[in-house]
Amino acid sequence: MTAPVLRFTPAEFAARLAKTRAAMEARGCELLIVTDPSNMNWLTGYDGWSFYVHQCVIVPPHGDPIWFGRGQDANGARLTAWIREANILGYPDDHVQNPDKHPMDYLSGILRDRGWGGLRIGVEMDNYYFTAAAFVSLTRNLPNARIMDATALVNWQRAVKSDTEIAYMRQAATIVERMHARIFDAVEVGMRKSDLVAEIYDAGIRGGNGPAGDYPAIVPLLPSGRDASAPHLTWDDRPLKAGEGTFFEIAGCYRRYHCPLSRTIFLGKPTRAFLDAEAATLEGMEAGLAAARPGNTCEDIALAFFGVLARHGIRKDNRTGYGIGVSYPPDWGERTMSLRIGDRTVLEPGMTFHFMTGLWLEDMGLEITEAILITDTGVECLASVPRKLLIKD
Amino acid sequence: MTAPVLRFTPAEFAARLAKTRAAMEARGCELLIVTDPSNMNWLTGYDGWSFYVHQCVIVPPHGDPIWFGRGQDANGARLTAWIREANILGYPDDHVQNPDKHPMDYLSGILRDRGWGGLRIGVEMDNYYFTAAAFVSLTRNLPNARIMDATALVNWQRAVKSDTEIAYMRQAATIVERMHARIFDAVEVGMRKSDLVAEIYDAGIRGGNGPAGDYPAIVPLLPSGRDASAPHLTWDDRPLKAGEGTFFEIAGCYRRYHCPLSRTIFLGKPTRAFLDAEAATLEGMEAGLAAARPGNTCEDIALAFFGVLARHGIRKDNRTGYGIGVSYPPDWGERTMSLRIGDRTVLEPGMTFHFMTGLWLEDMGLEITEAILITDTGVECLASVPRKLLIKD
Repeated sequence: MTAPVLRFTPAEFAARLAKTRAAMEARGCELLIVTDPSNMNWLTGYDGWSFYVHQCVIVPPHGDPIWFGRGQDANGARLTAWIREANILGYPDDHVQNPDKHPMDYLSGILRDRGWGGLRIGVEMDNYYFTAAAFVSLTRNLPNARIMDATALVNWQRAVKSDTEIAYMRQAATIVERMHARIFDAVEVGMRKSDLVAEIYDAGIRGGNGPAGDYPAIVPLLPSGRDASAPHLTWDDRPLKAGEGTFFEIAGCYRRYHCPLSRTIFLGKPTRAFLDAEAATLEGMEAGLAAARPGNTCEDIALAFFGVLARHGIRKDNRTGYGIGVSYPPDWGERTMSLRIGDRTVLEPGMTFHFMTGLWLEDMGLEITEAILITDTGVECLASVPRKLLIKD
Repeated sequence: MTAPVLRFTPAEFAARLAKTRAAMEARGCELLIVTDPSNMNWLTGYDGWSFYVHQCVIVPPHGDPIWFGRGQDANGARLTAWIREANILGYPDDHVQNPDKHPMDYLSGILRDRGWGGLRIGVEMDNYYFTAAAFVSLTRNLPNARIMDATALVNWQRAVKSDTEIAYMRQAATIVERMHARIFDAVEVGMRKSDLVAEIYDAGIRGGNGPAGDYPAIVPLLPSGRDASAPHLTWDDRPLKAGEGTFFEIAGCYRRYHCPLSRTIFLGKPTRAFLDAEAATLEGMEAGLAAARPGNTCEDIALAFFGVLARHGIRKDNRTGYGIGVSYPPDWGERTMSLRIGDRTVLEPGMTFHFMTGLWLEDMGLEITEAILITDTGVECLASVPRKLLIKD
């Protein structure tokens, strides 16, 4: 095998591992089993659509990380991760989706063989890719271990982005700008929604003279009219109608780094309800962005935004943003900080968020959002897309 | 709210619920918590990209199913599922990705309030969307319940497809045919791989005069040359090279129903290794298809295929297929039957599989596969794409 193609320097990977080990030590965790694909990628570079079977990266007490996965995916680890051959461990294929043979049974044997069966072992208890069955298998097969919850331990180390990560997110921002420009160019009354989705993918993936796009962790969400009261409906082939608003919740993605950004387009003359929601949102965003600076907290951004909405008679009872960065389906959020009341995480330069100011009301939805970077002195919007209700007649 | 748009008749949904209840009874399960989004869809019609937060469908001891999810997604349930208003239960947004408040804590309260706290409760232990933390929450909050493993209980009820499901899969087959035709038209030496991916999405989503496509549960996989030894790498923007083979593992998707089908294209004059692998695969597929008939088992197909490969000096040590149908990311497989040695599931008319005959060898990969339907007398390939190594000079 040739050397893997790495997207970060060895020094950056080493720093990530050191940060992770420090966090493990602070929590009394001696060995970490990392199942979140975005954490696996961040620690090792591993990149592949293999997370539909059990796999993980192990951070042992000493030495380099270990990749553990399906045998046929070991070549993927060799091609994408900075893991030496001896640390790439594949399990036999009869352990794939077989109720009688669980991959975590197999992993337990490896951990015991290496003398790690009695350690304090951290697992990501509330991650999509760490199932209840995986937990039961480890608990049963490692009776001397102390299994402890390390949900989001690695995710938190990712919160402050490096220069290279920010450069990748700026590329993703370029992509999402291109996607929104294409939407506005292409959208028209009578167009099938599926055809518009094809335009969005085309703009998101083709490079043209700019960066080619990777697949975002969520597909385009673009409900119209009353359907937009439901934030997570996907598309169908019904034609777009005059007199309706459609929001476009999309992200550009570059080397697995995301820049989400939503806009809403009204076909025809917007209703008073849309104009009122737009006014409240834009004023609230200004207030939220003004509160987005180092030393303030996540909650401060939410309070500023919600305060303006309340003055406009709108109550928003869901969170108004979350950390973003490297990710895999089903979520482009980082699953750490949320911009909501009660989250007193202190903002630091290099943190990145989707300031998710969407309003899903009784019979309409409006999304005008920004992807933001906390700077040394305040905040910067990563992408530049006209921040308003877009209108096309 | 207007009535939901349902893709199956009330009678078909009722039959699915009855089948599920019979399977529950056979296993001694009194209440079922269904977290697999494909099972939620199959039982109720619910369709939305909301599975990145905790949600489920509950099959109670009596009466209609209950949808439980994030409050803001309740409208999505109203718009897509045959669930009456009283059975749509949203949880507050501060339970989203909050280590102090788990949605399953909230659900436990509902189950206790309804007098179901002491039942034998089935959960999908080994599903992506049922995390270890969800299991621990239920166990702690429902001390009088007997939590039992019901992994794949609903998936197995889906194995034999209805006429409408088969009709949807035929639409998906039309879509995947269109996608492969587009690939062969567009592919050429020097083309950036990302541009080819944009073509694949375009063909997969746009309807033209045929059905518009939904998003497949896996993104296009199309590694070239040596990278094709790793089955699950995704794309980048490097140009396609002469003298290399690329496999295209893709699916058409219609109303969440999948028709996966892979082909391999060689740019230039194929090497002996490719021609040999092609000959073995095609002969092996004929043998496998001949074994695919009611009364035979999953294993019989695998044995027939592997037997031919062995005569050609090729050992395949991974499974050679799996059930297919309705699905969501990260997997378009049904996670029940596998075409492999040891799986003695008896084939029945109406079962559908991806006959996944891919070979990932030392420094190349070849995928020539078929999506198949077991008929009353044998087998039918759902899609019609030339079954051979495709060559473009």
